[in-house]
Amino acid sequence: MSALSALWEARSIAVIGASERHGALGRKPVDYLLRYGYEGKILPVNPRSPQILGLPAYPSVREAPQGVDLALIMVAAERVPQAVDDCVAAGVPLAIIASSGFAETGEEGAALQAEVVARARAGGLRLIGPNCIGAVSFNTRVLATFSPLFQAESVPFERGTLGFVSQSGALGFGAASLALQRGIRPGWVVSTGNDADVTALEVLCELAELPECQGLVGYLEDTPDIESLHRLAASGKPVALLKSGRTEAGSRAAASHTGALATDDRVLDTALRQLGIVRVDDIDELLDVARAFESTRRPKGNRVAVVTTSGGSGILAADAVERHGLELSPLKPESKEALGAIVPAFGAIDNPVDITATVLSDPSLFDRSLDVLIADDTVDSIVACFCVMAGADVDKAVDSLAKAAAKGGKPILVARTGADFLAPDAPQRLREADLPEYPSPARALRAAAALWEVTGGAPRDPVEAPAAPAARQPAAGASEPELKRLLAEAGIAVPEGRAVADAEDAVRSVAELGGRAVFKAVVPGLLHKTEAGGVVVGVTPETAAETYARLAALGGGVYAEGLAGEGVELLVGVRSSDLGPVLTVGLGGIFTEALDDVVHRLLPLRPGEGAEMLSQLRGARVLNGWRGRPGVDVDAAAALLHRISALVWGWPGDFELDLNPVRVLKEGAVVLDAAYTVSEGRKDSR
Amino acid sequence: MSALSALWEARSIAVIGASERHGALGRKPVDYLLRYGYEGKILPVNPRSPQILGLPAYPSVREAPQGVDLALIMVAAERVPQAVDDCVAAGVPLAIIASSGFAETGEEGAALQAEVVARARAGGLRLIGPNCIGAVSFNTRVLATFSPLFQAESVPFERGTLGFVSQSGALGFGAASLALQRGIRPGWVVSTGNDADVTALEVLCELAELPECQGLVGYLEDTPDIESLHRLAASGKPVALLKSGRTEAGSRAAASHTGALATDDRVLDTALRQLGIVRVDDIDELLDVARAFESTRRPKGNRVAVVTTSGGSGILAADAVERHGLELSPLKPESKEALGAIVPAFGAIDNPVDITATVLSDPSLFDRSLDVLIADDTVDSIVACFCVMAGADVDKAVDSLAKAAAKGGKPILVARTGADFLAPDAPQRLREADLPEYPSPARALRAAAALWEVTGGAPRDPVEAPAAPAARQPAAGASEPELKRLLAEAGIAVPEGRAVADAEDAVRSVAELGGRAVFKAVVPGLLHKTEAGGVVVGVTPETAAETYARLAALGGGVYAEGLAGEGVELLVGVRSSDLGPVLTVGLGGIFTEALDDVVHRLLPLRPGEGAEMLSQLRGARVLNGWRGRPGVDVDAAAALLHRISALVWGWPGDFELDLNPVRVLKEGAVVLDAAYTVSEGRKDSR
Repeated sequence: MSALSALWEARSIAVIGASERHGALGRKPVDYLLRYGYEGKILPVNPRSPQILGLPAYPSVREAPQGVDLALIMVAAERVPQAVDDCVAAGVPLAIIASSGFAETGEEGAALQAEVVARARAGGLRLIGPNCIGAVSFNTRVLATFSPLFQAESVPFERGTLGFVSQSGALGFGAASLALQRGIRPGWVVSTGNDADVTALEVLCELAELPECQGLVGYLEDTPDIESLHRLAASGKPVALLKSGRTEAGSRAAASHTGALATDDRVLDTALRQLGIVRVDDIDELLDVARAFESTRRPKGNRVAVVTTSGGSGILAADAVERHGLELSPLKPESKEALGAIVPAFGAIDNPVDITATVLSDPSLFDRSLDVLIADDTVDSIVACFCVMAGADVDKAVDSLAKAAAKGGKPILVARTGADFLAPDAPQRLREADLPEYPSPARALRAAAALWEVTGGAPRDPVEAPAAPAARQPAAGASEPELKRLLAEAGIAVPEGRAVADAEDAVRSVAELGGRAVFKAVVPGLLHKTEAGGVVVGVTPETAAETYARLAALGGGVYAEGLAGEGVELLVGVRSSDLGPVLTVGLGGIFTEALDDVVHRLLPLRPGEGAEMLSQLRGARVLNGWRGRPGVDVDAAAALLHRISALVWGWPGDFELDLNPVRVLKEGAVVLDAAYTVSEGRKDSR
Repeated sequence: MSALSALWEARSIAVIGASERHGALGRKPVDYLLRYGYEGKILPVNPRSPQILGLPAYPSVREAPQGVDLALIMVAAERVPQAVDDCVAAGVPLAIIASSGFAETGEEGAALQAEVVARARAGGLRLIGPNCIGAVSFNTRVLATFSPLFQAESVPFERGTLGFVSQSGALGFGAASLALQRGIRPGWVVSTGNDADVTALEVLCELAELPECQGLVGYLEDTPDIESLHRLAASGKPVALLKSGRTEAGSRAAASHTGALATDDRVLDTALRQLGIVRVDDIDELLDVARAFESTRRPKGNRVAVVTTSGGSGILAADAVERHGLELSPLKPESKEALGAIVPAFGAIDNPVDITATVLSDPSLFDRSLDVLIADDTVDSIVACFCVMAGADVDKAVDSLAKAAAKGGKPILVARTGADFLAPDAPQRLREADLPEYPSPARALRAAAALWEVTGGAPRDPVEAPAAPAARQPAAGASEPELKRLLAEAGIAVPEGRAVADAEDAVRSVAELGGRAVFKAVVPGLLHKTEAGGVVVGVTPETAAETYARLAALGGGVYAEGLAGEGVELLVGVRSSDLGPVLTVGLGGIFTEALDDVVHRLLPLRPGEGAEMLSQLRGARVLNGWRGRPGVDVDAAAALLHRISALVWGWPGDFELDLNPVRVLKEGAVVLDAAYTVSEGRKDSR
């Protein structure tokens, strides 16, 4: 049993700081454990009370009966180190520090937190928190929490299959309470506060390994670590994350264009998409997706059939299908024929299938239409929409849907736009039939899309970084000619070029390079050469000497290159991030800078991903030819991306590589400019 | 009293097709009127029953007592014409045709519908429907509907201030039932079905004129007419519309680039934004905005203060602020100072203001912080976030919020992320305190944004189209030289140019135009000249004769123009739409075509709107200079937009004017190419 599993398997729980006083936070966990029927040992710890709520209390956890699996520490911050020492001495494997007054309060608190973590680690004790509200397992009635949620008169306390993990305790238990109200059944709710030792993501990973856990949702404030994300994805369990702080993304100072484009938040978006983890933007969306995860049915593709009793709901559903990256199934001809025999003349047999309100007088319409859609293998999932229906009508619809759900393995989601007071039993009946329910077509479609996102995104095996740093990583401050040599060695095309020794050599170099050349100043630290006047295009033998003199005056060397042919320019860059190196590609110039038309991927690229990245640019048409202009060598551009990936993968440290522009020609692709920067210490992205 | 006001003022209602049979739709309205205490006369009409539910019934409305204000027609479609004739004969001003079997079923039904409308119009009878579920006024207990909503055991039937109007009856009453469940109080719910005579928008306009109506929400399937939108906006009442069918937009075949860019759906977006009408995408969003409309407080600007008891909620709120076009108020220094004395050290006094969970032990934190934010005039509205809190704690928070709300005129919206079972009275208490409540920060912020959208968007006075067509509208098939003459007369710069008579004249023309010229084929009907090889740039005296011969061979004339200077190219276009002529501007070439970076405005432009349009382009930096490149004459481009607006405003018919490109120079802006197309009949956008 791992230390963390005490959160759901603890047979003995110590509450350090327990109290009998009404209103005291320390009373609540003891009260909850008693009230909700925890079957293990409850050990209140309080030096001033021999007994709490009828249970014997102990002055210290050291003096409590041996074999404490979990300690909940609720004493004031300054007394936490002692409590941690006591836990270590008593051989407790896991403690939850609920107390506040640590890193969230400033430097002094951060120092205290570091001290506490150090003591725990030295003693083999894992810590959750501090500054959290604790954890609850609905399945085993481990309630190591003081959340006011459990003091309500009627809490729907049942077994559940979903793991809820939140850095914010208030938001986590708040969302969990809304989940309970909406008929969603969390099995575990864990708040992790400051994530000083155990992180929210580590808890998610542990929960993912429980066979009875069917899905996971998390609220994160810190950037997750990539290894845990890989572990989570590899578990095969569906996961949705709400990561706040989007608008603070991009706050890190960036040296290069690539750095400015690949903000932390976008990198996280990219990573989650690559790993098949759903990212949501709001609590409601998180709960809606969680509801869908409770069902075990998964789509085989992104094609949806909508069946509706109201034309209006059908149109809204169709609008949402496109918005969420799904497709309306075209339906097979035989399906349409079959539907034609079922659906009334004023309905619709194209998808969305509108069976009309006639279903009220003939409930078999629903059954028969659903049978057709379940048999149609161009349909991967079904969204059934109905509006205000009262009592028995809803029952009949639910019966049909339940029958259909039992038949096919396809996900069926329900949009019921009607109040619960019209059919008070409907939520319960839909839940029992394993049919996720939403109040609007758009919300049902969002959840359907999430099921495809977790299914279609192939969770990747974690990729190990090479053990030794790659031999070919440039030195900090490498010059453009040095970088281009490195690129050429890696099989990446660069223009023919050479250093220019003096004015005479300048004339000679232009002749050697074909009569016209580009001259560039090679000045250490000059990152934006063009803006500084350090690049001269179209140098001829006549202007060579004068141009050389002008560039040499900038204080460095001069480098001459041949002209590349006509083509389309790309920006290609790699920067390191908290999640590993990220490759960015965009169309050059204003496209990337003003329009943000860029695509990111965490390295290393898998086969086909280079071409995929290029095709995902909004301006991809520019590469393929448009308005009569010829296309360029997209294959060469894709190959270049793969070569860059292979070259850079494994470079350690914090760097930005900027190939801007890369010109994609009619045949081939050439790196025209390259820059490389290394930063010593990075601004912490938290 | 206008005919439509019978929907809320009828003193006498005839139900044509009334029945006493259990389960019959015709029983429901009579039942509802009796059950909910309608105080006027209920007149069941049924030729086969002398009495229905204890009320005397009549064989025809002609034989019912005089003075029927409203008839609800529920007979089979084929008997509707007779019922309409009867209503006309009885002098009924308004009938709701609930019956189906009209335009929604196909051609035959459409013909029947046209027949019915014709008879009604001839007889001075207004019609709602057909194919609708009727209407209800909660305030006067007029229930001319068979919606199953009212058969539920406990319907929260109270007075309300919001108008709900929906083309779809099922969706409209479904959304209304959800509204009731969520504590929102509709005063009127009207479904209009096929909109054959009275449209949903006309009902919204009539409701807007009721003093007791505080806000309106509508669900539309048909494109609204611009006059009604203007009337609605001019009412000053806040309005939110859910218009479905976004993804079908753009289905109209477009002759020009402008036509393809300014799709019906985008034009509607533009029109609604210009008029200060909120557009939403989902039922939930519609209800959330409706909830905010129930409060009468309005923001003076877009700056929000967020006060939260949970850091997590604060971050989520900040993310949503940016997403919805609002700003976080920076707060005045004296506010921060005051907050510093109130908020615990581990809280935050920057906006979002985190007063922390300490508020549980010291409820005055909420009061005092809110006082500071209300006094700060850099704060236009306040969003207060709290999470799971139980019973008395919620009460205290609500008390503070209610006190604060009573003090300032600022909107205060509440995000309470906690289940109702934790504080069963909270929804009611928040409602009584006029505090709109949402389950998540993001939803509260969306609603706060809507309040600013209806306040900040200045509803415009309707603009009358000139009575007579403008003299200068081009003829269908006008050639490029003709169009340019017209533009020049309107003060819009075009290149110097002239027709070329023959090969000899070609050489002469190049000389006259400065030694280099552009030659263009002038061929009637050739819209995409460039693609057809009909434009040759850089013609010199040497190549003039040969070029002339080549272009003349295309079958028309040849036109020579001088070269314009360097600059940035725009696409400028106008197309007529269901809502009037729309001006579109975008950066030229790939920017508009692949990236959709365009801005639309309904004509005529108001002062300043030209510059505003240009500044709203994502690629606006290209005009203002970027990466060391000089900017161009944005003022001239803006002036050109205003001249185009003045020129085109009032042109009748269905046309597309395409100025592509317009080159914006260092000084001035020149139209390089122009095309004009007229289409005879337009595809109906429905």
